[in-house]
Amino acid sequence: MSVNIPDDHPRRNSLVIRERLAEFVKKGLMTPTGLIAHGRGEAFDYMMGERTTDAALNAERVAVAYLMNAKRPVICVNGNAAALDAKRLIELASATGSKIEVNIFHRTEQRMELLINYMKECGAPDVLGSNPDTRIPGLSSDRALCTKEGIFSSDVILVPIEDGDRAEALVRMKKVVIAIDLNPLSRTSRMATVSITDEMSRALANMIGFAKEMSNKEKRNNIISQFSNEENIRASVSEIRKYLLDAVNGE
Amino acid sequence: MSVNIPDDHPRRNSLVIRERLAEFVKKGLMTPTGLIAHGRGEAFDYMMGERTTDAALNAERVAVAYLMNAKRPVICVNGNAAALDAKRLIELASATGSKIEVNIFHRTEQRMELLINYMKECGAPDVLGSNPDTRIPGLSSDRALCTKEGIFSSDVILVPIEDGDRAEALVRMKKVVIAIDLNPLSRTSRMATVSITDEMSRALANMIGFAKEMSNKEKRNNIISQFSNEENIRASVSEIRKYLLDAVNGE
Repeated sequence: MSVNIPDDHPRRNSLVIRERLAEFVKKGLMTPTGLIAHGRGEAFDYMMGERTTDAALNAERVAVAYLMNAKRPVICVNGNAAALDAKRLIELASATGSKIEVNIFHRTEQRMELLINYMKECGAPDVLGSNPDTRIPGLSSDRALCTKEGIFSSDVILVPIEDGDRAEALVRMKKVVIAIDLNPLSRTSRMATVSITDEMSRALANMIGFAKEMSNKEKRNNIISQFSNEENIRASVSEIRKYLLDAVNGE
Repeated sequence: MSVNIPDDHPRRNSLVIRERLAEFVKKGLMTPTGLIAHGRGEAFDYMMGERTTDAALNAERVAVAYLMNAKRPVICVNGNAAALDAKRLIELASATGSKIEVNIFHRTEQRMELLINYMKECGAPDVLGSNPDTRIPGLSSDRALCTKEGIFSSDVILVPIEDGDRAEALVRMKKVVIAIDLNPLSRTSRMATVSITDEMSRALANMIGFAKEMSNKEKRNNIISQFSNEENIRASVSEIRKYLLDAVNGE
């Protein structure tokens, strides 16, 4: 860490994360514009009181039900996701039987290798992505590159911190797309089958917990059938509107 | 520019700015965490429809009246502000008779020099900050360093993209503090005498326009006397709440 942050600093947690992300950029695992994306997330998180809302918890429960019902679940990892919480990504993959594939927007072979190695160092037994053998249809540029074994043939895919174009392309492939995105109104959130409007690390912790209590398939089907993503997005937006009203009223 | 962005890309403007900021980090004029701060701003701007709200325009008018009434107005410049729009910062300084002082959070002599040179290259006749001879009281670390000629003896100070601690310290010095900060609820916005909740470059363009039509002191006093920053912050928050409601209702 390049900066000392006092233990009692009120914003310690977010300052520590910022420094970690800046380190990731320095080491080449993240692009500088990934920091801007993180900042956008921070702002939305701030407007939800930096906590998991009821709507988010609901989406997290449904997401786990989908992952555990899936035949070929895949968890997609990019630089921001790895920097934020590689361990919980791996833990959730293990708890739900999901494969992990690294897939990045600004693809270079070097960054792919750095990220795959980083995920392995953090305990991932196997990480796909280094030898892409196909493309996501309808996407130009290298971000379309993926593996047949992983993303391409997945039926349920978790995409933390995804861009709108790719989320849309995955939905067009008829996959169940689970997004973790702090902006409930982003194109990714609007496109996804299940939109989790929550900070990634908190979302994953909750999801790992849910995976332990969802061994019953009927229960999982029930949870899925009762869910409307559109209604849930509305609930997330309501939470933000309420937070803003309370804040300006000094509550 | 390291990335080619098509002329017809719907988000071209913000992508161009992102690339410029990333370049500033690469060249050492901005810190990586400055990119995170920019991302937070982007999110708030998004929630105001990426336009100047009536509340922001109101604050911009009042801010110019304060700057033009001032005996020793100063415009504070940091890495983000310089990267976003150095030219308009200089133009506003000229239009309001304000001095420019570079002052940065993570101070190094090298970055100070780079920023001062950059501002001069962009046309600033004189830029303070390289030889600090005093400190802002109540602030630890090097971000307290400033000049007697500039920030220290200013009566009205414009701080675009400021941190809360420093805004508070400047208010304690009994200065009129004008903040440009896209988060209407940030500590900086709450502390400031006038809080401009707008994207910096748009705010400056409006302010430069106002400066041309405010030669009359009585008119300026009138504008100032009718302004309540607290009410104006409420109006900014209402705009965000309305935007969110419209967006979720598909309007």
